[in-house]
Amino acid sequence: MSAEIICVGTELLLGEILNSNAQFLAQQLASLGIPHYYQTVVGDNPTRIKKVVAIACDRARLLIFTGGLGPTPDDLTTETLADFFQAPLEERPEIIADLERKYAHRGGFSPSNRKQALLPVGAQILPNPIGSAPGMIWQPRTGLLILTFPGVPAEMKQMWQETAVPFLRSQGWGKEVIYSRVLRFWGIPESVLAEKVAVQIAREHPTVAPYAGNGETRLRITVRAKDEAEAQQLIQPVEAEIRQIVGLDCYGADEDTLASAVAHLLQERHQTVAVAESCTGGGLGEMLTRLPGSSLYFKGGVIAYANEVKVNLLGVNPQDLEQEGAVSAVVAAEMALGVKTRLASDWGVSITGIAGPGGATLTKPVGLVYIGVALPNGEVITREFRLSGQRGRDWVRHLSVMNALDVLRRQLLVNP
Amino acid sequence: MSAEIICVGTELLLGEILNSNAQFLAQQLASLGIPHYYQTVVGDNPTRIKKVVAIACDRARLLIFTGGLGPTPDDLTTETLADFFQAPLEERPEIIADLERKYAHRGGFSPSNRKQALLPVGAQILPNPIGSAPGMIWQPRTGLLILTFPGVPAEMKQMWQETAVPFLRSQGWGKEVIYSRVLRFWGIPESVLAEKVAVQIAREHPTVAPYAGNGETRLRITVRAKDEAEAQQLIQPVEAEIRQIVGLDCYGADEDTLASAVAHLLQERHQTVAVAESCTGGGLGEMLTRLPGSSLYFKGGVIAYANEVKVNLLGVNPQDLEQEGAVSAVVAAEMALGVKTRLASDWGVSITGIAGPGGATLTKPVGLVYIGVALPNGEVITREFRLSGQRGRDWVRHLSVMNALDVLRRQLLVNP
Repeated sequence: MSAEIICVGTELLLGEILNSNAQFLAQQLASLGIPHYYQTVVGDNPTRIKKVVAIACDRARLLIFTGGLGPTPDDLTTETLADFFQAPLEERPEIIADLERKYAHRGGFSPSNRKQALLPVGAQILPNPIGSAPGMIWQPRTGLLILTFPGVPAEMKQMWQETAVPFLRSQGWGKEVIYSRVLRFWGIPESVLAEKVAVQIAREHPTVAPYAGNGETRLRITVRAKDEAEAQQLIQPVEAEIRQIVGLDCYGADEDTLASAVAHLLQERHQTVAVAESCTGGGLGEMLTRLPGSSLYFKGGVIAYANEVKVNLLGVNPQDLEQEGAVSAVVAAEMALGVKTRLASDWGVSITGIAGPGGATLTKPVGLVYIGVALPNGEVITREFRLSGQRGRDWVRHLSVMNALDVLRRQLLVNP
Repeated sequence: MSAEIICVGTELLLGEILNSNAQFLAQQLASLGIPHYYQTVVGDNPTRIKKVVAIACDRARLLIFTGGLGPTPDDLTTETLADFFQAPLEERPEIIADLERKYAHRGGFSPSNRKQALLPVGAQILPNPIGSAPGMIWQPRTGLLILTFPGVPAEMKQMWQETAVPFLRSQGWGKEVIYSRVLRFWGIPESVLAEKVAVQIAREHPTVAPYAGNGETRLRITVRAKDEAEAQQLIQPVEAEIRQIVGLDCYGADEDTLASAVAHLLQERHQTVAVAESCTGGGLGEMLTRLPGSSLYFKGGVIAYANEVKVNLLGVNPQDLEQEGAVSAVVAAEMALGVKTRLASDWGVSITGIAGPGGATLTKPVGLVYIGVALPNGEVITREFRLSGQRGRDWVRHLSVMNALDVLRRQLLVNP
């Protein structure tokens, strides 16, 4: 009882659009517990579409098509499917009526829209409440179900949720739920994490799979269950075990971010933070203010890009700048304390580093970054990072912001 | 001589990540003139990967794999391909040496990384300069070429551009070039732009196609040519016509951004800018410092999120804050002038607005944003924007930053 997602459209093969439909449908199938093992993209070409259908019929019992339902000559999904299964097309008066109504205010529907009213004999209309192209629900032969959707994401999503999901459930699809929880880690490489939780990874249910991206490491815990409550009951003990083993490196789960973890800790304590940024140019402030309600814990900051700004607005000692350089632990400490003092916040966080590609010296390579954190008691700690300069300026800046959030997070946790 | 893109990863089937790799590779193949007719996504399952390989071998001569090259047990691409083509795996000392070097500063590489050093006999290493997982270039039999890449987009892209493209060209792939130039516009809706350049859009070669996204409008000029020189000769007159018609709304082309346009104008004049940000929390500074060498024109700024920061660090009049509110033209003007004065820059730019979802009043809805620009002569201008609050906080903040850059850009252009 598995499904296959088939996206039709030459614009996908040209890379003109991102295939967000496949992601949406994949998430939906996962949450309905309908397994799917393959996704295919094919252009607006009847011969190739037929080849793809032939392959898909062999390996799936539910074929979900997006794209190729429009009024133009290169929209070929419906007629190609009809041809493949040798079913005649018939014009559906309900669709004609619907199109006439929809196009009434736009000067009437054009003859080319008439094509959209053709469906194979035996297929059911899958109504499109917001766009012109309807889809279909079709069982061309026993044990094979076909759903078609237009390529426009908003239309496809609404049609999926309003009509396809209830229909699938009524037909016995999606009885079981696949539920995933993603644990998120910072400061631990994927291979080290995988070794620490090797016992959990080796288990068959729930499955635990590590992956990495954007500098963070994740573990996905997946279960198959009757409902969400049962799923959570299965996941919870595994999550607890993993958190116990890994400790502080785990900063959250699912939708959590390092910024939301920090925001949560600050709000719990009714404390505020201010930032002093050099190489990140405002990226840390930007990250901390992405969350609604950030004014509760974020006061603001100083983007001290030029050295004179570090001196004039943050009170960094010009002698330290001269002797140690702007990218140094002592300047990071002075920036963090300076911004905490001048903005009267509980915490101050600073970033100074060499984002590159220029600015490196013999002793200070691109990727050298210092993070400072001024604590509520006036103490200041600093951390040195040597990030991979080879991955470019954006990467160094991204990791600098993330590391600053992580250093602050750990200080919040160890200084209750 | 066609290609197929095969993305391996259960996270794609679960919809956890968007398949941006497929889009990137599709664009690249299109620009190299290498046809590709199918894309396939398959999970981390050797049996299914083999089925996909068998199908792809029948319909393409270049198979491009992404994903499944990591150090963990569910990374199976390389060994499954070796198994499919019955080629033994061998450990490559060069990869071991490279991994040892890369992991030296992180406490050494772990035994699981050793797996990444295994390649089929006869395969060539496709080096990964920034991550751990190398790919391979492999001709398992005559007339079939396989390239493998890690799933991490940044690594895949760099490996593609640095090694795969030169290799493919050396092998006779990508003889004809499809060359596109994208003109970029701000402050003009797609429909208005399309009407202004209707004559150009009606032409067949070069083709001109409008599209929109992220708040900006674009025109893509596309030609098919023998080489880049010929392509540029065809594109240049069309571009000149369009720029003539559209004027100031065109801010650049291809890789240009509003930030790079501003940076260019400031550098031409040897002038500097400083920013004062409220609702964007540092996003404008972050954007202006994405470009290498931004210290030449960017001095820094003040993130004046809390009102007290606006008063204490920017000299905003507390009475104006009280009477007009923080989101007002007068406060925007004072912020812009304040940051210009205190950071001793030539230009000052400010943003104050209601990003939402909270903070709206009867007269000030979510999406109301004021931009201030302080000119070198001390004059200050402000602009009011009413952005769509329905599209959410991120959208309002994004458009606020972009509009601030655009207001500054236009002031730079009209005040030479």
